Amino acid sequence: MTDQKLPAPLFTPPPAEEMALRITRLRAAMDEAGLDYLVAFDPDNIFYLTNFANYVHERPFIVVLGKDGPLKFLAPKLEVPHVRSRMVGQIEITEYFEFPAPQGENWFDRFAELFGADARVGVEPDCPLHIFQAVPGQPTGSPIIEDVRMVKSDYEIARIIYASNLATQTQNHVLENAKAGQTLVEVGSQVRAIMLMQVLADYPETNMLATNVTGVFQPPSISHDPHNFTNVNVAMEEGGPHVSLINGTMNGYGTEVERTFFIGHVPDKARRPFDTMMAARQLAFDLIKPGANMGEVDEAVNTLLKQAGYGDNLLHRTGHSIGVTGHEGPFLAQGYDREIKPGMIFTIEPGIYLEGIGGFRHSDTVLVTADGCVSLTPSPSSLEEMTIPSH
Amino acid sequence: MTDQKLPAPLFTPPPAEEMALRITRLRAAMDEAGLDYLVAFDPDNIFYLTNFANYVHERPFIVVLGKDGPLKFLAPKLEVPHVRSRMVGQIEITEYFEFPAPQGENWFDRFAELFGADARVGVEPDCPLHIFQAVPGQPTGSPIIEDVRMVKSDYEIARIIYASNLATQTQNHVLENAKAGQTLVEVGSQVRAIMLMQVLADYPETNMLATNVTGVFQPPSISHDPHNFTNVNVAMEEGGPHVSLINGTMNGYGTEVERTFFIGHVPDKARRPFDTMMAARQLAFDLIKPGANMGEVDEAVNTLLKQAGYGDNLLHRTGHSIGVTGHEGPFLAQGYDREIKPGMIFTIEPGIYLEGIGGFRHSDTVLVTADGCVSLTPSPSSLEEMTIPSH
Repeated sequence: MTDQKLPAPLFTPPPAEEMALRITRLRAAMDEAGLDYLVAFDPDNIFYLTNFANYVHERPFIVVLGKDGPLKFLAPKLEVPHVRSRMVGQIEITEYFEFPAPQGENWFDRFAELFGADARVGVEPDCPLHIFQAVPGQPTGSPIIEDVRMVKSDYEIARIIYASNLATQTQNHVLENAKAGQTLVEVGSQVRAIMLMQVLADYPETNMLATNVTGVFQPPSISHDPHNFTNVNVAMEEGGPHVSLINGTMNGYGTEVERTFFIGHVPDKARRPFDTMMAARQLAFDLIKPGANMGEVDEAVNTLLKQAGYGDNLLHRTGHSIGVTGHEGPFLAQGYDREIKPGMIFTIEPGIYLEGIGGFRHSDTVLVTADGCVSLTPSPSSLEEMTIPSH
Repeated sequence: MTDQKLPAPLFTPPPAEEMALRITRLRAAMDEAGLDYLVAFDPDNIFYLTNFANYVHERPFIVVLGKDGPLKFLAPKLEVPHVRSRMVGQIEITEYFEFPAPQGENWFDRFAELFGADARVGVEPDCPLHIFQAVPGQPTGSPIIEDVRMVKSDYEIARIIYASNLATQTQNHVLENAKAGQTLVEVGSQVRAIMLMQVLADYPETNMLATNVTGVFQPPSISHDPHNFTNVNVAMEEGGPHVSLINGTMNGYGTEVERTFFIGHVPDKARRPFDTMMAARQLAFDLIKPGANMGEVDEAVNTLLKQAGYGDNLLHRTGHSIGVTGHEGPFLAQGYDREIKPGMIFTIEPGIYLEGIGGFRHSDTVLVTADGCVSLTPSPSSLEEMTIPSH
């Protein structure tokens, strides 16, 4: 970890210059890949390119980026005032009336007109098949937008710092107030209210379509099964491990901070897995720096966990990136051989899952700096700090 | 409209027989289309086929339906207990460890093994490109699942009736308590609490990943722009038209009911558009019956609206279907030449939008019966009933 000074948090929409910077980076990558156009349908890619958040339904919103000129944005007529109220940057809207529509008036009729003849078109990998098939010529899949999004701009870093600060404060609130008997529905409602009221106070025009905050926990009986939130009435218990998860996308930018905690006492069987998880986590913090290979970081962390005897108790990779999307590339995962670069964001969250004992996982959101990484979610983490007095 | 007796509402997960019925209908359609396999990634299609609701992220969940044997379900290892806790029917899970993964251990390695040699594979139109490209052989786009979903089973109708009853009660509550000064954030929070508490009381294991309820309104100043919910602090005013929208997917099945209402008095300029909207709505109720053409229903409704002079004030079609997805096919839309069949569900919601006056739209969810249609959301609708006394 490094002590680099962090930029001040920011929670306002991007200025036009920020959007222009993104377009410039994308066009450089298009040029390198020999593409004339890029097509995006994924709502997070569209948000990245326009600051407009859409709810995906049957009326498509599609962005087409050419080699020059404004970004072209195909949208249903019904939504055009909504698009204009949020969009930032040089954008030209093309509208269609409705889906479905009579022959010649469909979205795909207008869409086809957005491309020049014999164009080489790259389409995002997440694009729905029926939209890909409406691209004229011989389009190809291209992850250029996803790749460019992997290195955050200064503006994006400042936005993620805002979200991280609020999530960390909220995580601390949950830990300070943890008490046997508190239910998931109680904690979830409180946490949601705290975060939503704060974002609306800080920026009243916060876009709720780009905002989704969650605070949940798992008591020891289910924390070995990390995606089990089936019963909203589960309650905190004396002992542990509990795992609390605070994450949120706030007006378009996200973060996560998760903690393994105990109430009153730490069961003997929980000490060694907790300490091992902490060692794996520290190793990841130490290894994440510019030039390191992402797959090798995960391999080193997994080797530590396996050598401690927990090879059969792993359920996921060391971490993922986070930004406009809650889980996005790049990934700290074996087999994913990419180089870490400054300005990337990762979660560090190696976990150990033991049925009958529980789950052990902290998650932090970190920023890659010039010579290492720095946590944006510096909430307490030691076993001592994670043992909440009974009351 | 018909007076046909409706089935009793139902709010429990589907029995295995219901899932088997769906598979039988899909296999008949596959046979007719000459397909050996169907592939689904869309979370609503997966829910329809498995009763498992997933949150889409980078670790794919994919269903593969062959001509016989159990449904095959590819899922990340991390989620397998979650899948098992919800799935209904004959399902065989194939797990993969993580995304990304080392060579030979990726989701697409396991996925490719689910198909026989030289298979003819149909892929849902919404499938992401990168998943379509991982299908072996020469797959084609096929809307079979979407088509089969268009005619609801008795079980599905009973689920939609449950959701419609609760949404109608909630709409009535909003209308009875409408008052100048009430804000969107107040009404939205109340409505959400009413509906969520009721669904959790009626079925404590309600799947929150398949539940999303919304209650919003637009005051007269913005109701001409029907998707404008930018400011959560807008308030109800004396006069109107306001439009209140209550809709929700409740443990997997949805409904909507919307009303145009006034507080205290009806401005003179609002009377004619309200009456015209009501006439258009009645025409749609009268025309929707088995054998009618969906595009022609919309055309007749639009002709009425245009002849009344509102041709420039239309922003959308007459209606859409609703079920597992909030807006799903089939559609009451010009150019969509399909035949209406018993067991289909539609919204009826012709609208008129006049800047400076406001928006005029009721929406009801209706079921197509043997000889017409019946509203599942019979909330008051006349101008007299929609004029709430000031208090």
